[in-house]
This record gives sequence, C-alpha cells and structure tokens, in this order.
Amino acid sequence: MKDTLTNITESLVRFSEVDSMGIVWHGNYAKYFEDGREAFGNQFALSYLDVYHNKFFTPLVKLDFEYKSPLNYGDKMRIETTFINHEAAKIHFRYKIFNQTTGALATTGESIQVFMNLQKELIIVAPEFFVEWK
Amino acid sequence: MKDTLTNITESLVRFSEVDSMGIVWHGNYAKYFEDGREAFGNQFALSYLDVYHNKFFTPLVKLDFEYKSPLNYGDKMRIETTFINHEAAKIHFRYKIFNQTTGALATTGESIQVFMNLQKELIIVAPEFFVEWK
Amino acid sequence: MKDTLTNITESLVRFSEVDSMGIVWHGNYAKYFEDGREAFGNQFALSYLDVYHNKFFTPLVKLDFEYKSPLNYGDKMRIETTFINHEAAKIHFRYKIFNQTTGALATTGESIQVFMNLQKELIIVAPEFFVEWK
Amino acid sequence: MKDTLTNITESLVRFSEVDSMGIVWHGNYAKYFEDGREAFGNQFALSYLDVYHNKFFTPLVKLDFEYKSPLNYGDKMRIETTFINHEAAKIHFRYKIFNQTTGALATTGESIQVFMNLQKELIIVAPEFFVEWK
Repeated sequence: MKDTLTNITESLVRFSEVDSMGIVWHGNYAKYFEDGREAFGNQFALSYLDVYHNKFFTPLVKLDFEYKSPLNYGDKMRIETTFINHEAAKIHFRYKIFNQTTGALATTGESIQVFMNLQKELIIVAPEFFVEWK
Repeated sequence: MKDTLTNITESLVRFSEVDSMGIVWHGNYAKYFEDGREAFGNQFALSYLDVYHNKFFTPLVKLDFEYKSPLNYGDKMRIETTFINHEAAKIHFRYKIFNQTTGALATTGESIQVFMNLQKELIIVAPEFFVEWK
Repeated sequence: MKDTLTNITESLVRFSEVDSMGIVWHGNYAKYFEDGREAFGNQFALSYLDVYHNKFFTPLVKLDFEYKSPLNYGDKMRIETTFINHEAAKIHFRYKIFNQTTGALATTGESIQVFMNLQKELIIVAPEFFVEWK
Repeated sequence: MKDTLTNITESLVRFSEVDSMGIVWHGNYAKYFEDGREAFGNQFALSYLDVYHNKFFTPLVKLDFEYKSPLNYGDKMRIETTFINHEAAKIHFRYKIFNQTTGALATTGESIQVFMNLQKELIIVAPEFFVEWK
C-alpha cells in the first residue's frame, strides 16, 4: 500500500511567469503543482495519459496554496509532490516548493481530484485500475 | 464599517483559457479571482494602484478554490467578490463564480493578502489608509 | 463582397499580463489578437463556434507582431481587427492595438488561418459556408 | 565573429499549454521561443540577466511564427535557436521547433530585439558589451 509516495522534480522560473514586482505571479503556482503531479505520474505510472487510457478524467475539486516566500525570475525550484492515501475514490496530493537558490520554502499546498468517466459522470467507487495501482 | 461589501462583475471564457476537455483549466480561476478583486478595487477605491500609491504591496499569502461545475469556452460568467472585515492587517476576500449561461455555481474560493512596504517588509499594524478606507 | 470589414473592441490590461518591467509581456498580444478575432466573429457571425458548427477548424498557420510602444498595467486598449479578403481558402486578419490612455499605437500584426475538417485534413477549396459568408 | 550560433534545448508540452483541440495553443510558442532565447543566453552569456547587469533592456520589436504541424500534450520538443549577426544595434534570432516524438518540424519563427537603457530610451549604437560579446 502506497501510503505516502513522494516525487521530487526541479524547474526554473521563466521570465513570463514573474509579475511587475519581479516575483512569480501567484496563479502560476497552479502550473508548478501540475508539473509536480505530472512528474509524479511519470515516475509512478499515474499521469493524465495513464488515467485517460483507463477511460477516466480526474478533474480537480479542491486546490489551495500557502505562499511563504517569493520565487524570482531565474530561480531554480524543487517541487516535492506527495500522494496521500485515502479509502475514497479521490486523488490527494500535498506539495512543497523550495527555492533552490536560497533554500527557503516558497509555497505549500494541496489538491484533490475525483474520477469521472468519459461521459463526465462522477465515479463514487475507486476505479479498479486505481485500486490496483495503490 | 464595511463588514461585507460585494462587487459583481461579468466576463467571458476565452478560447485560450480552456483545456483539452473543453473546460476552463483550473489554474485560470486565479485570473478570474484577480479580475474580481480588481473590479472590487475599482468600485471601492482599493485597487492595486490605489494601494501602491499609498506605498504598499499586498501579496497573497493564502488562496483556495473549490470547483463545483465547469465553465466552457464561450460561457459568460458572473464573479461575486466579497470583502470580509478583520481587525488584523490583512485583506480577506471570498469569491463565487457563476456560469451565467446555465445559472450553475462554478467555483468558490478565498484569498488573504498582507501588507508590505516598498522595501518588501511585512506590516503588522493595518496601514492608516486601509483603516480609513474601512 | 466583404473586402475589408473591421471590428473594434476594448479591453483592459490585467495585472497578470505585465512582466517585471511593468509592461505587457509580448506573448500576451496573441490573446489580444484572439480577443479581436472573437469580437469580430461575434459581430459578423464568424466565431470559432460558428466555424465549428459548420464542421471546420481554422488553425493559424502564420502570425506576426510589430511592437511599437508598450501597454502598462491598468491601461485601456482598443483592438481593431480587419478582415482581408482573398480568393484562396484562408482567413486573413490585420490587427491594430491602440493604448486608449495615451492614444499611441501599441502593436500591429497579422494572422492567417486555414480550414481543416473534423478529421484535421487541410481543405484546399474555400468551404461553402465561408463563400456564402463573404 | 559569431555569425550564426545555435543553441539546442528540449522541453515537454504541459497540459495547461494545449487547447480544446488537444494541440498547443498558438500563443504558447512565444514561451517556447523565450525558452530558446534563455537557453541560448545561458549557454553563450547573453541572458536577460546578463543584459540587465550591463544596464540594458532588450524588448522585442518584431516576432513572427509559421505553424507547420501541431504539438500535442505530452510531446517532447527540440528548440533550435540561432543568432543572426547584424551590424545594427539589434538582436536577431531564428527558431525551429521540432516534435521529438514524430520528428516533424512544428513551428519556425524569428524575433528582433532592440536595446534600451534603464530610462527606457532606445539605443541606436550597439552597446559596447554587445559588440565585445560578438
């Protein structure tokens, strides 16, 4: 049982991601969390495409951010993405983003995704492929 | 005392804001909330530029989203942005985004901003202009 | 025959669209041009959805920008989108974006779109609905 | 004399970069070209920060794209960024983006940047640091 699995990936702050104060615009952390989920999915075979090939979508129903310290243009970041196991038919991740340049914790957050079939109907019971994956 | 003030604004889902499922990509709601904050600020004299002219920044420290139902390309949305009053030196907003086309509640959320001076130092006591504004 | 038809629409520079120099990041003009095309399409019945309902896609094959003067956060812009008529099976637009605040010409450009059917095959002969539209 | 210098870098199409047709939205190629410029700048000491430390900005005055074939979500791309030497005080790049998954040429384009000093005045004569760099 994968109770907590963590992926670690690195990325660089793009010029187009910082705002007029020279720091990453807060909304862009949604992309960084998605980069984290994708890196997790690629490492542990739970990417969007893996899920899609099993004929499911996994839209987000909840997403939150706590901003601790800023990232600046050119900063290198480390994204830690941790899977939190639940009985229910949902995918729960926790995120920590660190500024590699300074070592500081930049942003933390969580996301919850649910399962929908290709007709976009909510699935209440965890799909077989997901139970097996766990 | 402005305990709860609400601004209502409308917007249209852009083609570039939807994902491969044809619905608004979850991260774009950070822009819609910002559109709501800006419309609120323009109506009640608390925009980024108003704040900046008083020599403060107001970075977000917390932001969260609950996704209830999707918005599609071309949908018209109504953004309701409500100011929640606090004693502390922070700006707290609640958001509700409705799909005008269907009437459905699409997304809710909250944000908390703090005050920093132009040297990017955190301000603990609510700035005079903000106390007067309230 | 609609040799040159022009739509005029207005928009406001969002905070998330400016870069660390406080001016609109150059890539965001692709969105403004798209806003122009959509406003044109809504006025003259040639929107993405109109085209899609006729079972065609119209992907861009060419897009260019000339940047004349910057737009700043909070600036109001006027987008002029002009349809240029051709015999061939393509959609050609010219764009002019003006800074409403200063009157200055900010950016000009052009785009060319072609027709694809829903199987994503290129259509060489202008579709009937488009010929009728013209 | 660096008449033509080329950097090659690789990147992955993010989920948030594709549109409702499942292909990269055309405006996102401005980011990929910027990724190319930055990778070039990092390899050859001509990044935004290098330029900024010499007290110049280099805003784009011209940018164009030709779209040859689409990139899909999950595709790996190769970005080739080539510096084209000129006598004048400008920076001219040519770009080729290939789909690594299929080998196809996806998009080509060019950009021209000029020099401004920190007062945002146009510089007509190529700055010394740039002449030395060449």
